[in-house]
Amino acid sequence: MPYHAPANDFQFILEHIVDYSRVMQTKRFSDVDIDVVAAILAEAAKLSSDVIAPLNKGSDTNGATLSNGIVTTSPGFAQAFAQIAEGGWIGMLADPDHGGMGLPLSVATAVNEMMAGACLSLSLNPLMSQGQIEALEHHASDEIKSLYLPHLLSGAWQGTMNLTESGAGSDVGALRTKAERNADGTYIITGQKIFITWGDNDFGGNICHLVLARLPDGAPGTKGISLFMVPKFIPNADGSLGEPNTLSVVSLEHKLGIHGSPTCVMDYNNAKGWLVGGEHEGMKCMFTMMNNARLGVAVQGVGIAEAATQSALAYALDRTQGRSPIEGGSGTIADHADVRRMLATMRADTFVARSIALACGIALDLGHEDAGQKALGSFLIPIAKAFGTDTGHDVAQMGVQVHGGMGYIEETGAAQFARDARITSIYEGTNGIQAMDLVSRKLMDDGEAAFALLDEIETFAEAARAQRPELAKQVWDAAETLREGVEAVIALPLNDRFAGAVPFLRAFARVLGGHYHLKAALAEGRDSKRAKLAAFYIQRLLPEHGPLLAQARLGASGLYDLSTDDLTAL
Amino acid sequence: MPYHAPANDFQFILEHIVDYSRVMQTKRFSDVDIDVVAAILAEAAKLSSDVIAPLNKGSDTNGATLSNGIVTTSPGFAQAFAQIAEGGWIGMLADPDHGGMGLPLSVATAVNEMMAGACLSLSLNPLMSQGQIEALEHHASDEIKSLYLPHLLSGAWQGTMNLTESGAGSDVGALRTKAERNADGTYIITGQKIFITWGDNDFGGNICHLVLARLPDGAPGTKGISLFMVPKFIPNADGSLGEPNTLSVVSLEHKLGIHGSPTCVMDYNNAKGWLVGGEHEGMKCMFTMMNNARLGVAVQGVGIAEAATQSALAYALDRTQGRSPIEGGSGTIADHADVRRMLATMRADTFVARSIALACGIALDLGHEDAGQKALGSFLIPIAKAFGTDTGHDVAQMGVQVHGGMGYIEETGAAQFARDARITSIYEGTNGIQAMDLVSRKLMDDGEAAFALLDEIETFAEAARAQRPELAKQVWDAAETLREGVEAVIALPLNDRFAGAVPFLRAFARVLGGHYHLKAALAEGRDSKRAKLAAFYIQRLLPEHGPLLAQARLGASGLYDLSTDDLTAL
Repeated sequence: MPYHAPANDFQFILEHIVDYSRVMQTKRFSDVDIDVVAAILAEAAKLSSDVIAPLNKGSDTNGATLSNGIVTTSPGFAQAFAQIAEGGWIGMLADPDHGGMGLPLSVATAVNEMMAGACLSLSLNPLMSQGQIEALEHHASDEIKSLYLPHLLSGAWQGTMNLTESGAGSDVGALRTKAERNADGTYIITGQKIFITWGDNDFGGNICHLVLARLPDGAPGTKGISLFMVPKFIPNADGSLGEPNTLSVVSLEHKLGIHGSPTCVMDYNNAKGWLVGGEHEGMKCMFTMMNNARLGVAVQGVGIAEAATQSALAYALDRTQGRSPIEGGSGTIADHADVRRMLATMRADTFVARSIALACGIALDLGHEDAGQKALGSFLIPIAKAFGTDTGHDVAQMGVQVHGGMGYIEETGAAQFARDARITSIYEGTNGIQAMDLVSRKLMDDGEAAFALLDEIETFAEAARAQRPELAKQVWDAAETLREGVEAVIALPLNDRFAGAVPFLRAFARVLGGHYHLKAALAEGRDSKRAKLAAFYIQRLLPEHGPLLAQARLGASGLYDLSTDDLTAL
Repeated sequence: MPYHAPANDFQFILEHIVDYSRVMQTKRFSDVDIDVVAAILAEAAKLSSDVIAPLNKGSDTNGATLSNGIVTTSPGFAQAFAQIAEGGWIGMLADPDHGGMGLPLSVATAVNEMMAGACLSLSLNPLMSQGQIEALEHHASDEIKSLYLPHLLSGAWQGTMNLTESGAGSDVGALRTKAERNADGTYIITGQKIFITWGDNDFGGNICHLVLARLPDGAPGTKGISLFMVPKFIPNADGSLGEPNTLSVVSLEHKLGIHGSPTCVMDYNNAKGWLVGGEHEGMKCMFTMMNNARLGVAVQGVGIAEAATQSALAYALDRTQGRSPIEGGSGTIADHADVRRMLATMRADTFVARSIALACGIALDLGHEDAGQKALGSFLIPIAKAFGTDTGHDVAQMGVQVHGGMGYIEETGAAQFARDARITSIYEGTNGIQAMDLVSRKLMDDGEAAFALLDEIETFAEAARAQRPELAKQVWDAAETLREGVEAVIALPLNDRFAGAVPFLRAFARVLGGHYHLKAALAEGRDSKRAKLAAFYIQRLLPEHGPLLAQARLGASGLYDLSTDDLTAL
C-alpha cells in the first residue's frame, strides 16, 4: 500500500483548527501566506510519497550495516537524501541569511511529519541536521557558522547529536566524556557515546558531531557540561575535507525497528573539537534545540500513525471475510463493527495528535513576538511529544490487529510501523519524562498556560452550543473536569505530581482532542466526514479523561506502600 | 534476567481466589488434592525455569528454518521437548485410561502458563498435541485412538491443527481444501493450509495433522466441513512409520516474533487421510477443542506478562539514574514514581489476567458435573483469552518502556517479549472475535452466567465492607455499573452489541479484577503486599470500566455514519 502524504489535512488544520493566519500577521513570517504554505506542503508531499516512501520497506530488510568501521546505508537512501537536500528541506527552518528557507515551525512540522510517515529511518538524518543548524545559529562562533552552516544546509555534510552514554541517559548530567583545552583554543575530546542516531553514513561528505563533554574544571552534574563540534574530517578553511579526526564507529545497535537508521556507539579518542557556546554552557545550548527536537519526534509518531492507518484501511477494504453485517456494505471486513471502530479510532486519534503538534508549532511561531504564546508552545510540547508518539504506537498496533494474522507476517509491513514507532515513545526524553516536565516545569506558572488553554476551549464550546449542543456540552464538561484536575495537581507536592503525570498528560491530550474535533465539526457541515468523526471521538474516546484525571489526583497515595520487595516477591 | 516460574502465585490463587477445594470435591478429580497440586506446580516450575526458559533468547535469534523441505528447529528444542514429554506434560489433561495424567484444567492451565512464560515458541508444540489428543479422545474411532494416542502422549509423535487458508481465516467456512472418499474408507485430501503452527519439526517422529476439508457433497459454509487425520508418515498397524504421505511444507512465515515456532504453509497433494468424527461434523469436533485452546492462549499472554514483569523489575532495580525522589529508596529507577507506577500496573494486571484464567479453568473442571459451572466457564473463556493476551501485550510494552533506550535494543530481550506476545491477541480467534463471542453466544442465556458472576462479586464485596470498606465499596459500585451495562447490552440488536464488544469485554475484565484483588486483600493482612497491590488496582485501574461501559452502551450509534470513503478520504 503506497503512502499518500496527507497535505490536505495539514491545510485544513492550519486554516480551521489552529488559525495559521495569525502567523502570517507576524513580521517574521509575513511573506509565508497560506498559498505559499499550500505550495510547500504539496511539494513536500510529492517528495515524501514518490521518492522517500518507496524506500521504507527495503530499509527495514536491508538496514544499515557496519563493516571495518564503515557504515553502509540502505539502498536508495543516498539518492533520496540528495533530493531532500536539493529541495532545501534540511534548511527549511534556518535563517534565510544563512541560506535557509526561514519557514514557520508549524509548516516545517507538517513537512517533518510527511517525511517521517514516508520513512522514519531516512527522515531522521535531515532532522538531526535541522537540530544542529539551529544549535549553531544560536550558539556557535561566526567562524564555525561560516564554515559549517553552508555545508549542512546544502546537505553536503550532516549533523549528529551526541548526548547519551551508557550510564547517562535520562540523567545527562552523569556523563563521563572528557574535554581538555588545547593551547590553540581547540579541545581534545575523549569518551564513548551510545545511541547516536545516524552517527555515520556513506553519503560522501563530512559528519559533524555535536558532543557533550565535561572540562576538567566543569562542575558535577549538568552545570559542568560543555558542547563541542567534533567533525569526522577536520575541515580546511576553504571547506574542503582535511585529515580524519580520531573518532570511530565502534558498533551499530541491533534494534527492534528503524533498521535503516544507523544507531552508533561512537568512540572519541583524543578527537579534536571546537567549543560551541560558552564553556560549561552545553546544557543551555541543548535546551535551545530541545523544543523543536521534541516536536519533531511528536510528528514521527503522527506520521507513522497516518501511514499505518492508510495501510490498515487499504487492507480492510480489500479483504473479504464472512457475511457483511450491514446492508449495502462493501462486503469487506471494513463493514464489521469492530473493524470500523478500530479504523475510526485510528483516524480520530491521528487527527488529534496532528492538531496538537501543529497548535504547538503555531504557538512557538507566534512566540517569537508574544511571550504568552511562547509559554503556551512550551506547555504543549510534552503533550505533543507524548501523545503523538503514544498515538503512533497505539495506531500502528491497531493496524496490526486490523490485518489479523497477516499483520504478524513481516511482508505486509504492518508490523514494521509498530516496530519503528516504538522508539519514539522512548527517545528525546521518554514519555514519562515528558509527563514529569508537564506537571513540574510547565506548571511553574501556577497553571497560567494551562488555564489559558482551558479558557479557549470553554469559550469555543460555549459558542458552539447553538450549532452542536450535545457535542459542545461534552467538551465543555470535560474541560471543566480538567480544570479541576489542574488545580488539584498544582496543589500536590512534586513527587505526587510525578506519580500521576502520565495519566494527567493523557487526559489533557484527550480534552484538547475534544476541542479540535469540535472545531472541525463546526468548520464543515453537520453531515461532513469531519463532523461525523468528531461525534465518534467526543462520544467514545473523550470520556477516557475521567478516570485518568482521577488517577492523577491520587498523587503518590499508596504507591510507595508497595516496596520493590513487594513487587519482586509476589 | 532468568525467568522464575511463579508457582507460589498459582498456589495462592488456587487456594484463596478461585477456591480449588471445590474441584477436589468432584468425583473426577478427588485424588488431585492441593498437596498433589503443589508438587505438580513445583515440578513444572522447575522444568520451565531451568530447562525451557534458557532456550528462549536463542530461539529468537536462531529461529526455525526450512531447507529443501526440511524444518530445522532452534538449538536445544529437541532435547527440551524430550524432557517435557518425559515429564508426562503433553498428556497432562488426557484420560488416565489412555496413559494421561488426568489433571484438572485449572492445574494444567497453570502449567501451560509457566511453559509459555519460559519460551512461548517451544511451548506451542506440546500445546498443539494437547489439543489434538483432546479431539481424538472425543471424536476419533477406537482404531485411530489406539494407533495415535500412545505416540502423541509419549511425545514420539506431535500433533498440529490445520484450519486456516489464505481466504479463510476468521471465516473458516470459506475453506477450499477438498476431501474425496477412497473405496477403502480412507480419504484423499488436497489443498493448501496457512499459519500452521509447528507444521513440521526435526524431533524424529511423526507429525499428525488434523485437517479441515470439504467432501464433494459437503454443504457450503461451516456445515459441510469434515475433519481428517493426515499423518506425515503413514503409520503401520504396529505404530512404526511407513511410507511418507504426499504432503509438504511449502514455506515458513517470516514473523514479527515466535521465531522458534515454525509457522508453515502446508500443501496436501492427494494426501491420504482418515476421518475423525462424522462426515460434515468437522466444526463440531473443532469446537470441542476450542475452549481449552483459547484458555491455553490466554495464559500465553499471562506467561509473557509475568516474564516481562520479572525482566523489567530486575532492570529497574539494577539501573541507577538521577537522584532518588524518596528517602531510603534503593537509589535505582524503581524509586521514580512513574517507574513504580508502571511496575505496579504490570504486577496488578498480571494477577488479574492469571486469576481470570484460573477461574475459567476451575469452572470448566466443575462443569463436568455442574451445568451452571460449565456455562460460567464458557462465559469466562473469551474474557480470559482477550484480557490475558491484551495484558501480555500491554505489560510487555510497558516492560520495554521501563528499560528505556535499552528496551529498543534486541539484546536485552524486552522487545522479544513484546514481539512474541503480539500474536496471542490475533490467533485462536482475534480478540475482536472473542468479544463478539462474549456479547452474542455467551449472552444468549439472557445474561444468566454474567449475572451469577455479578451476584458473587457483590455478595463478596458486601461481606468485605466490614474489613475494607473503601475498597469493597468501589468494587460493589463497579459491579453495579457493570450490571446495568450488561442489561443495556442485552437489549441491543446484535450488530450494536458487536460495535461495543471490545470495550464491554475489557470492562468486564476490569470489574473481575477488582473482585479478585479484593479477595486477595482479605486473604492476607492489611499490610500485606497483596493488600497494597489490591488498593493500587482498585483505586487506579478499576475506574477504567466506566467509560468503557459507556462506549459499549452506545452500540453502533454513529459508527456507520462514517463511511469507508469518509475514513479513506480525510
